[in-house]
Amino acid sequence: MSSPFDRLHVVLVNTRNPLNIGAAARAMSNFGVSSLRVVNPWEASFREARSAVGAADLLSRAREFASVADAVADCALVVGTTAAGSRELRHPLRRLEQGAGLIRRRLSSPRAGVALLFGSEKRGLSNEDLSHCHWLMRIPTRERHGSMNLGQAVAVCLYELVRDRKAGAARVPREKEAGAAETERFTLLLLDALRDSGYTAPKAAAATEEKVRRLVRRLNLPAGDAETWLGMLRQIGWKTKSEG
Amino acid sequence: MSSPFDRLHVVLVNTRNPLNIGAAARAMSNFGVSSLRVVNPWEASFREARSAVGAADLLSRAREFASVADAVADCALVVGTTAAGSRELRHPLRRLEQGAGLIRRRLSSPRAGVALLFGSEKRGLSNEDLSHCHWLMRIPTRERHGSMNLGQAVAVCLYELVRDRKAGAARVPREKEAGAAETERFTLLLLDALRDSGYTAPKAAAATEEKVRRLVRRLNLPAGDAETWLGMLRQIGWKTKSEG
Repeated sequence: MSSPFDRLHVVLVNTRNPLNIGAAARAMSNFGVSSLRVVNPWEASFREARSAVGAADLLSRAREFASVADAVADCALVVGTTAAGSRELRHPLRRLEQGAGLIRRRLSSPRAGVALLFGSEKRGLSNEDLSHCHWLMRIPTRERHGSMNLGQAVAVCLYELVRDRKAGAARVPREKEAGAAETERFTLLLLDALRDSGYTAPKAAAATEEKVRRLVRRLNLPAGDAETWLGMLRQIGWKTKSEG
Repeated sequence: MSSPFDRLHVVLVNTRNPLNIGAAARAMSNFGVSSLRVVNPWEASFREARSAVGAADLLSRAREFASVADAVADCALVVGTTAAGSRELRHPLRRLEQGAGLIRRRLSSPRAGVALLFGSEKRGLSNEDLSHCHWLMRIPTRERHGSMNLGQAVAVCLYELVRDRKAGAARVPREKEAGAAETERFTLLLLDALRDSGYTAPKAAAATEEKVRRLVRRLNLPAGDAETWLGMLRQIGWKTKSEG
């Protein structure tokens, strides 16, 4: 089945740690992005990565390139990721929330390939790498600790790309609440148990009844749970009655 | 400085891999969430984790608990994370996009603490762990490969909690474009160079001129780059003229 995300290429440049290549591949598999390209990885590290949980297939199909230029040659949009230092001011810099929208729009056109570049763990993308980018994207981390782990950065970027824009805005459907009749039955059973257990002082019975009624209404007893609650109270009621 | 996220507690239950505790701590530091609670970690793994990049301070302040009940005792809302299997149907299950909105709303009230639970790498949260939760939250991963790496799951959840709801919707400010005068100067210099280099057939000069003029307008020459472009074209123009 074809998806717009088939045209998205995750490009890891000069990655050194095989765990990070594996983690990136796992996040890609989690979010349904399948094209992994690696530029000049440590030979050994790339081979070691091929064991990442659930992503072996994706890793075996990963393509290796000698340069960034080769890796992005078929892409109409090239976006670099960065932990915003002063260096990247030469490029337009967009927050992930905004950049992801632009990438999604571009992917919705059937012709365009999009490359999303991630640099090495230590140094990020070099100025030469950045010169291939149309613009840069920054995950909104704290200024004092902006640098993310590579696998986590890939996961967060892909999540922002695939997340459902409408799901966040949708109202949470409230659990259906028990009807008045069930709520009142619950109240009466509770009052019986309270009286039989000696909780209610005979003189204060009316005041207690009102208090308990309000108390029960504030519970918002879910409709689906009402029978269970009534069963439990009935059982407790039999016990308190028989002991009285 | 106090932040609503000071009331958010990331609770790692039965975590086995020290790298994952470290990765969770690093993501917390990246996104400005500082309270880490660990329930029954492998003693050694917890100590080893204290070297995570940029998060040593956060790890040294992490609190250790013997049970989930103890770890969440001061929280008004307890949310479990899951890679949605059948088991969790006993709880309301919300997508991250939606659940994060509810958590943010709760955190905006000064009194309430919120616990966000993550289970062990192998088994996730147990049924006993889940019984302490008000509802469950699921990162929208693919059904066929839903299970995320722990550190990546923490990073994605915290990103969704802190991301700017408005930044995504904001329009990207277009780069200011060069004015008509500069654009026309660019056009004329280009036309000169094309003529002097023999590109333009003398008979087709008028047609070429129109074509080039349209071509240049479609470039959307950025205002800040106009001088550089004019300088380059002037240089090329001198060369083509002197060679003619």
